[in-house]
Amino acid sequence: MNYPTLNIIKIGGNIINNEVILDEVLGDFSEIEGAKILVHGGGRKASEVLEMMGIVPKMVNGRRVTDARTMEVVTMVYAGLINKNVVTKLQTKNCKAIGLTGADLNSIQAHKRIVEDVDFGFAGDIDAISTGEIAALLNIGFTPVFCSITHDNKGQLLNTNADTIASALAVALSESYEVILRFCFEKDGVLLDVNDDTSVIEILSKKDYENYKSIGQIYDGMIPKIDNAYDAVEGGVHEVFICSAKALNPNYFIGTKLKI
Amino acid sequence: MNYPTLNIIKIGGNIINNEVILDEVLGDFSEIEGAKILVHGGGRKASEVLEMMGIVPKMVNGRRVTDARTMEVVTMVYAGLINKNVVTKLQTKNCKAIGLTGADLNSIQAHKRIVEDVDFGFAGDIDAISTGEIAALLNIGFTPVFCSITHDNKGQLLNTNADTIASALAVALSESYEVILRFCFEKDGVLLDVNDDTSVIEILSKKDYENYKSIGQIYDGMIPKIDNAYDAVEGGVHEVFICSAKALNPNYFIGTKLKI
Repeated sequence: MNYPTLNIIKIGGNIINNEVILDEVLGDFSEIEGAKILVHGGGRKASEVLEMMGIVPKMVNGRRVTDARTMEVVTMVYAGLINKNVVTKLQTKNCKAIGLTGADLNSIQAHKRIVEDVDFGFAGDIDAISTGEIAALLNIGFTPVFCSITHDNKGQLLNTNADTIASALAVALSESYEVILRFCFEKDGVLLDVNDDTSVIEILSKKDYENYKSIGQIYDGMIPKIDNAYDAVEGGVHEVFICSAKALNPNYFIGTKLKI
Repeated sequence: MNYPTLNIIKIGGNIINNEVILDEVLGDFSEIEGAKILVHGGGRKASEVLEMMGIVPKMVNGRRVTDARTMEVVTMVYAGLINKNVVTKLQTKNCKAIGLTGADLNSIQAHKRIVEDVDFGFAGDIDAISTGEIAALLNIGFTPVFCSITHDNKGQLLNTNADTIASALAVALSESYEVILRFCFEKDGVLLDVNDDTSVIEILSKKDYENYKSIGQIYDGMIPKIDNAYDAVEGGVHEVFICSAKALNPNYFIGTKLKI
């Protein structure tokens, strides 16, 4: 059976923070034919609003602790300000965008992260994706734009990493689509040498990744990003790339393809 | 030809501000069978956030002037915080809610209000409703939940009165639905005597309204509310009520029905 192609594109805060780049990226995204989904991160605006409201951001091991007031602010900034600005911009590019959180259509169900050594507050770990509802939107030609908010289906919104959302959507929708998943970030791909932007690894196997990680050549923030990408590869997603948003333009081919 | 029934319910800030009442209202709303749309106002949260962020609300003739920073805040509060909290609560009541602004699916197109004597900033006056897209959502059993944000289809979000949105949606969707529109507010209906909550006018004709208005018996904030309601009546909406949200419960029948 031939499944239709579904492109899922995740863009990060570095793109959200720059209006000129964002506009270019949304233009290239709009040009993608067929079913597509955009997932966007937060950018620096949440921190700015927290600061303006006198709420001190609390981080543990580089991850934000989401207390009740912080949850309110990330909901405002991610689901309100950023999501709706992305959506209005996409309409000008003839993309019939519809902005969503995981609460909308109960599309992404999660649970509040269980407290082990650190209490991350209202951080949500994904349990299930409502693929039927998302496919229904895609089938009538609408383009879902997800921000990084989920919910527990008991009335509580939760803060969930955007890479994780993109990966979970890609895996779940692979049951009825041939999914191409691209994690777009500020480099052209996974670099062999972090100081050399041209050292993009074209194809990264899981074995090579484990090796690079063990010798410390891939480290820090790249590890959760690549792990999310491998969750997708191992979950049956047809093609998974880590690349620059410039790679959405078909004339620009650079990026890292992940293989088992 | 028999059109299907579509219930459009507008709830105001007084309901949004009270969690217990909001929960009851959303429960009653969820029980309404068939196609339905919820439109919600803002409540006091936007003013609170503006104050916390050090932005002084500017009012002219009782209406908010929406400068650029205020537009950011209302987008955050209406489209983010309030809309997504309403949506997550509706899922717990088995209502397949999907939160929308007028930017989503380009569903409500508006223009920035033309400056005459007062510059209201990013206030949006409605030009068009994308009925096909909204009907497509209703046809697959989804329940749109609109906040009071529209856009100009050129990338600018705009702040539009929620009563006006409810009225415009009702008129536009009357081309393919038998629309029942209810404006829910803190009283049981339009009162003959503002000091007597039991003095609800059961049926208000346009002629009686003009008369009550001319003798000052209906005044102030009720006038734009009733005018919006008459826009709906005169635009072909099947039934239009001004009532309490309690009237969403079929066992509670009080309200004012507006007639030409």
